[in-house]
Order: sequence, then structure tokens, then C-alpha cells
Amino acid sequence: MSLPTFSASDHQFMALALQLAEKGRYTTTPNPNVGCVIVNQHQHVVGQGWHYQAGTPHAEIHALNMAGKQANNATAYVTLEPCSHTGRTGPCADALIKAGVKRVVAAMVDPNPQVSGRGLAKLAEQGIAVSHGLMEQQARNLNRGFIKRMTLSRPWVTLKLAASLDGKTALANGASQWITDEYARQDVQRHRAMSCAILTGSGTALADNPSLNVRYDELGQLQEAIDPKQLRQPLRVVLDGKNQLTDKLKMFGLDGLNMVINRTPNRQLPAHVQQQQVGAIGNKLDLKQVLSVLAEQQINQLWVEAGGLLAGALVEQNLVDELILYQAPKLLGDKGQNLFVMSEMTTMSEAKRLRWSSIKQVGDSLKLTAEFSSVPV
Amino acid sequence: MSLPTFSASDHQFMALALQLAEKGRYTTTPNPNVGCVIVNQHQHVVGQGWHYQAGTPHAEIHALNMAGKQANNATAYVTLEPCSHTGRTGPCADALIKAGVKRVVAAMVDPNPQVSGRGLAKLAEQGIAVSHGLMEQQARNLNRGFIKRMTLSRPWVTLKLAASLDGKTALANGASQWITDEYARQDVQRHRAMSCAILTGSGTALADNPSLNVRYDELGQLQEAIDPKQLRQPLRVVLDGKNQLTDKLKMFGLDGLNMVINRTPNRQLPAHVQQQQVGAIGNKLDLKQVLSVLAEQQINQLWVEAGGLLAGALVEQNLVDELILYQAPKLLGDKGQNLFVMSEMTTMSEAKRLRWSSIKQVGDSLKLTAEFSSVPV
Repeated sequence: MSLPTFSASDHQFMALALQLAEKGRYTTTPNPNVGCVIVNQHQHVVGQGWHYQAGTPHAEIHALNMAGKQANNATAYVTLEPCSHTGRTGPCADALIKAGVKRVVAAMVDPNPQVSGRGLAKLAEQGIAVSHGLMEQQARNLNRGFIKRMTLSRPWVTLKLAASLDGKTALANGASQWITDEYARQDVQRHRAMSCAILTGSGTALADNPSLNVRYDELGQLQEAIDPKQLRQPLRVVLDGKNQLTDKLKMFGLDGLNMVINRTPNRQLPAHVQQQQVGAIGNKLDLKQVLSVLAEQQINQLWVEAGGLLAGALVEQNLVDELILYQAPKLLGDKGQNLFVMSEMTTMSEAKRLRWSSIKQVGDSLKLTAEFSSVPV
Repeated sequence: MSLPTFSASDHQFMALALQLAEKGRYTTTPNPNVGCVIVNQHQHVVGQGWHYQAGTPHAEIHALNMAGKQANNATAYVTLEPCSHTGRTGPCADALIKAGVKRVVAAMVDPNPQVSGRGLAKLAEQGIAVSHGLMEQQARNLNRGFIKRMTLSRPWVTLKLAASLDGKTALANGASQWITDEYARQDVQRHRAMSCAILTGSGTALADNPSLNVRYDELGQLQEAIDPKQLRQPLRVVLDGKNQLTDKLKMFGLDGLNMVINRTPNRQLPAHVQQQQVGAIGNKLDLKQVLSVLAEQQINQLWVEAGGLLAGALVEQNLVDELILYQAPKLLGDKGQNLFVMSEMTTMSEAKRLRWSSIKQVGDSLKLTAEFSSVPV
């Protein structure tokens, strides 16, 4: 394949395909978000599609159905390499061939190293002009959870925290309601809705008895984008290395699935709560193994809402990809509770470094999003 | 005086006067920043002036000199009510009358309640049309230190801090070089250059032995605006309630004036270091009295660079007007040193609240500027 060059209109159509793909971000789990645009020789869009849910047709099939005979000699823009294998649906590469498209542009190849490139190769064998790498970074951002699971067998981990400007998550007595205002909490609901699972520790679960669910009436503008009947509840996961949990947690009674990860099965938990065992490092659950277990459960995007102990342990072990910190314009003073319980550092070079992704104001809080600089493979 | 209405061109000329006034912000102490624009009947600017330094002509005089005879029947836009008293220079009101201006627009009246309005009254008595309140908020922002000193006999207090994203100013062992990068430190130099005095505590002075001066070669772009020969060194002030300081501090050997505020005179200090005594509350210096002493020294803008103890005490006593926090994209963990040492809060309503003024990126840090919501009179 020669080094591809892409025109302005190529970019325009791929941008549209990416927008379409994004529509699936509340529903496609464990599948990736994919969008497809089919453009005829007159540069008219004749087909559009996006993947809605695992088990339903892929983006390419929707777009081909819409294009009908106009797909003949057309160009297909697709945000992810078309599949070449038969899963729950037929291979999209075959459908594109059958429809007679003459060119296929993919934003990125399949992240699974074992299948990567096969879909494009199948198309090329049939004389279809194929290329990839157009707006690849945007496409990768859209599916970073899926990509990380496919390549590293771990989910993309976003750690959410809320604190005062002086870095305190709660008062010494535990009071933390409310550091941030309702707009920040609504924003958290939107992130939960995009996540495959929500993780917390037994300490937080027992102290706050949180619901950790998606509440339709708190989704704000997102209500327009989501059908309340199709509301996906992320898997709720509680780490409980010491089997401290009982059946009393509020979340166990809510819609959606619950999982407790522990070292030995806990008979006090309700039968409908899935239990998974992992090993320990010292007296703490092996967090890397926790993430592997969640990847095996097809969790692409993990949303962590945790106290300082779990947050600190995840950061210390370089297991967090992204930090989202809601900072309220308040000061709580040194007696308040800290964001990250970690081992003492003795030189500034040990600091955990991040790079900013975005800085926004949400209600009266700042929403700081940053990625960790050195996420090890 | 009837309720004034101002035209678009009035705003335009006052905006110019405000820009001119700003040029004095590194030099006019203890005088306010003032700008003046004189506009003839054809709406042409015929005179511009700004106050450069105490003891030199006021803005109006510079503008009138430039306008010459064209000031006759002109309008004068001035960011602060023209003075009516004879200080080190003659009263500007008299000069405006003598020049024959027919209209004077002031952004704000003199903040000193004892003289406020007299300059405009003097002009009005001569049949000159006077009004005020045009772009008043901008004018007040420019001279908030001067205004606070005139009205409350205390300087405007800006507390500067640098911390990690989790609110730590240093490691447990005290290491803090460098949390922020050179761009943030350069920005601090610019703020120091705008300040009348820099305040710190004896703990920081002894631990870090800081220079607390303005260094021309670290001013970056500001070098263009400042003549190195005219570089103003803010008064350096160290609080030392226990007479722990000796003559060994680096700052005592640098250009500029030094002051130590203590409870009883400290004979160990060099003779050129001014000493001021204030009372104590418990075993701490009375910080409100410290600010009164500084206002008596004609300090308009106080820049505080302090550790958690002094920062916490100032915030706890509601003596800080503005917080500037440089936040580096790093995490230091709970063992690091805290921004504010304060008494334990037991309900969230005790949190010290702020409102955002600006959020900028400076180098790799965020620069958060916020004012405290309830600065008591």
C-alpha cells in the first residue's frame, strides 16, 4: 500500500463518518463506535450509517442499505477497518465488495493485532482502492477503550474526582455533600452513561452507600440523545479484598449488573451479584489483575469513583489513563481528606505527571481533564 | 448631577484613557494609575497623558500640554476624578479650567471619601459639563489597591501559591523546586513588579531564604514595558513574631527596602532593615494590624508568597482579596505539604468560597485567579 494522500473532501466525509460513529457511544459496548458514509462519483452522500448496538448491523450495512444501487462505483468512508470475519453479523468487507464500491477509506485499521489489516486486504484483493490513516487520531480517541482492551487486555481507565481548590475531597469528618454543584454532578452522569463499568472500593461503598447508576432524569441535555428505554446501566464493580460487604448496599437493588471482586467468595452477598476472585499484593487486591478481569468481561471504558486509598493505589501503579477532576472554588484547609493516598515521595522527579486534555467550566466548578504521561504497556 | 448617558465614542475615548493609565502600573505607587485623553469638537484626539510616577505631573497635565490651545472647548476623558488639592503638583481641576475644556468625563470619583467629588464640583462651578461612571468597573479594577487603602486603610491582598493538582506545595521533606515551570515563575515576576510590597513569613524566609525581588532578566516580554534603570523593587516584608530572623537573609542584601514586622524590636537585624511592631492575637501577630501598618506605609497592592501557616491564617481571617494559584499537572500524594493550614471545619458551609476571575494556561501550569466571596469591611 502506498503512502496515502487525502483530499479536503475526503476529510469532510470522514468527519461526517466520525460524527455518526459518536452516536453509538452510549450503546455499542462491547463493540466499538463506528460510522460509515458512502459518497457517489458526483461527491454526493448516498449512504450513512452508524453502529448502534452489539448484535445489530454494523455501520457499513446501514450505509449500504441506504445507498442501494448508488453504492456501485462509490467511495465508502468508514471510521474503522471493515470486518472480514463472520461474527453475529456477516463480514462487512463482503458486503462492500458485493455492492460494487470502488474505493474504501478507513480512519484506522482494526486494533486487534491478530485481525488488523485483513479486512482491507480482502477488499484490495478484489481491486478496490483501499487506504487508511485519515483522521486516525480522532478515530482512535473515539474508541480508546476498545483499542486498549484489544491491544493491552485492560480497559481505558478514567479516574473521576471532585475536590476543593486546595485538593480536599471531604472534611475530616467525612462530609463531602456537596463540594461541587448540580451541574458537575450532571456531567458525571453523562460520563457514567458512556462507560461500560463503574469501579469503586468497599470503603466508599460502605461509607457513602452510593447508587453508581445512570439516572435518566439527571442527564440534562443528553436526554435528547438517549432513549430512556434503552438506557444502558454500566456494570457496577466494588473491590472488596476483606469481604466487608453485605447484601445491604443500595446499588445491589438497582437496575443493572453488579460485580464484587474479592480474594475469596463472600457468602453474604446476594446471588445475583457476580463475584470474581483475584490475587493480592501484600494485603491489597492485585489491581492489574482486577483490570484484566474487567477486560475479560469486555469492559472497554472503566469509570472510577473512588476515595483516596483506591485512587492513590491506581495512580501509584500507573494504571490510570485519564484523570477528570472537578474543582470547586472553595477552600477546605489541611484537615480535609486528600485526593491520593500514596507513599511518601522524596524527590520532585517522583511526581506523577499529566498532560492537559481540556479545561472547562461546568457550573461553578472547573473540569480539568488530563492524561497521565507515562502509562506503561 | 443628572444620571449620565454616554455615547459609543465616549466609551472609545475612555477605553483609550484606561489603556494609557495602565502604563503606570509598574511605577505610580503610592499614587493611583490615571490616564487622560483630550478630544476636540471634531472628535479628534488632541492630547494623551498618563501618570508615570508620584511627584511627577498627573495624567491631565501631560494631556493638556500635548493639546495646547486645542484643549479649548474640548472634552477631557480621565480615568479618575481630577484632583482639586495642591499636592506635590498643582490641582488638575484648575489646569483643566484654565485650558478652557468644556466637558470632563471621569470614569470614577476619587475613592477617598473626604475628597470625593470636590474636583468635579470645582469644574462644574465653572460651567464645565461634568459626568462620571463611564467604564467605572474597569477603572476600579485598575486601582483596586489604591481604592482599598483609601476606603478601608488596608492594601489589596493577593495571595500567590503554586501547587500540584492535588493541592500540595512541597514534598514532606520540604522539596518544592520546581513544582511549576519557568513560565509560571516568570509570570510571578510580573506580578511582583506590579506590587508595592511582597509579604512572607519567617518560616518561609528561613527555610527557603528567598530573594523576593524583581529580576529584570526574568521579566520576559515585560522588559519592553519597563526601563531597567527605573525598575521598582517592592518593599519586602517578613512577619517574625518570635524574632527568629538574623542578618543572614539574602533579601537584606538586595536592592530595595526591607521591613520586618514583629512584636518587639530585634537587635540582630541590620540597621537598614525597617522594623515595625504590632500586637498579637494568642501567640500570632495580629494580621489585621499588619495590614494597617502596611497601608500606613502607603502600600496599595500587597503580594503574598507564603507557606501554609501564614496563607491559612490570612484566609481564615478573611484578609485575602484574591487568590492566584498556579497548578502544575502533577500529583504529589497525601504526604505532601498543604496549601492552607486552618482549623478543622465540621460542615461544608464553613468552606471558604471564591469566584473565578480568570483561568489561563501559563507554561504547563494552570493559572487560576479567584476572588474571595466575602471580604468583610
